[in-house]
Amino acid sequence: MTRRAVVLLSGGLDSATVLAIARQDGYECHTLSLDYGQRHRSELDAAAALSPLLGAASHSMVKLDLTLFGGSALTDAAIAVPTDGAAISASHGTEHVIPVTYVPARNTIMLSLALAKAETLGANDIFFGANAVDYSGYPDCRPEYVAAFEAMANRATKAAVEGAKLTIHVPIITLSKAQIAARGHALGVDYERTVSCYQADAQGRACGLCDSCRLRRAGFEAAGLADPTRYQART
Amino acid sequence: MTRRAVVLLSGGLDSATVLAIARQDGYECHTLSLDYGQRHRSELDAAAALSPLLGAASHSMVKLDLTLFGGSALTDAAIAVPTDGAAISASHGTEHVIPVTYVPARNTIMLSLALAKAETLGANDIFFGANAVDYSGYPDCRPEYVAAFEAMANRATKAAVEGAKLTIHVPIITLSKAQIAARGHALGVDYERTVSCYQADAQGRACGLCDSCRLRRAGFEAAGLADPTRYQART
Repeated sequence: MTRRAVVLLSGGLDSATVLAIARQDGYECHTLSLDYGQRHRSELDAAAALSPLLGAASHSMVKLDLTLFGGSALTDAAIAVPTDGAAISASHGTEHVIPVTYVPARNTIMLSLALAKAETLGANDIFFGANAVDYSGYPDCRPEYVAAFEAMANRATKAAVEGAKLTIHVPIITLSKAQIAARGHALGVDYERTVSCYQADAQGRACGLCDSCRLRRAGFEAAGLADPTRYQART
Repeated sequence: MTRRAVVLLSGGLDSATVLAIARQDGYECHTLSLDYGQRHRSELDAAAALSPLLGAASHSMVKLDLTLFGGSALTDAAIAVPTDGAAISASHGTEHVIPVTYVPARNTIMLSLALAKAETLGANDIFFGANAVDYSGYPDCRPEYVAAFEAMANRATKAAVEGAKLTIHVPIITLSKAQIAARGHALGVDYERTVSCYQADAQGRACGLCDSCRLRRAGFEAAGLADPTRYQART
């Protein structure tokens, strides 16, 4: 019997790799993207295009206006996206400074929606591209957070009460960006189609300056892979 | 210093009572309602009207289309709302049958949104009208579920990492409907303004037949209170 899984797909490098891993593991994958009012809208177009390319059985997008809550550079136009690499160095230092690109409770909301979708589909598996290495400043990317969410989910649903065990798979949580890129490359992921930039333009071209761009470029470099990212022309 | 709290307010009897309790406990209350495509739309109007009447400092509504996931009589027009009391008797019997009015992961999604709002406001308290007595068939109304959500939330946020302790208050979780009504009555809640019915009409008038109407009416009766509910005219 084919096992069904819900895969959270943002359209970036990490989640595209996770979808490829879930497919290789033999799951029938149903991808879910969250339109939370993010500035980088072309990420959502990338998710919709990547889903069938990577062999998913269905794709759905849930619209939720998190700008109502504000509080992050990714949703609040009044907060600038940092382009000086400060958040990266802070997250690798001894002080755990949380970047302004952190969106309040975003991963909890995304996993909750994935849980609803999983229950509706009769799926017992959720794949989630959390990564604790490059983004150690994000509390909801840590293994202890994922374990706590899984424990909660197994008390939350009709399926759980009836005896099913829900598993949150985080296959890249301890991998470096270079290891993720190498893994996805080996699985045939076309990274030119992914959008990681926090301020990509409408065509999905990356700024090359934000934390996400810096980490991604350094990842390809460290993996010895050509960087297929389409960048905006510099003025 | 005034303590801020986020109060999940559906517009029904339970959550209105919880808001009155949070106010009596001295919290500055910020109410949050979820428009999840429920059939009973007038519940949302009731929430918006009740919030200032019960002394909340702000009210916000988040729109999220859960009908995408289907699977419940409350969101899926193809599933009938039961009016024969079957779900009530099932939930009080030895078999834990989960009613068709259960919405997949709904409480997890609502608490996640409350968590995002709490973090944005700098609030460490969330009030939630879960009740394990009348709805023992709903897995996400049980104390063990609430405890698991709280444990997860305390690993999820920037505030938690920085040392704040988030508390999920469930002040009516072990109360009967009669006890809830008596408590709210003593706190001055005008229950005529609340809408509990799963299929209320546009004016907020109740059907009198669904599980929610049956439980509510029996609660007023057991509490020795007049039932202030406005009912639809029977044809």
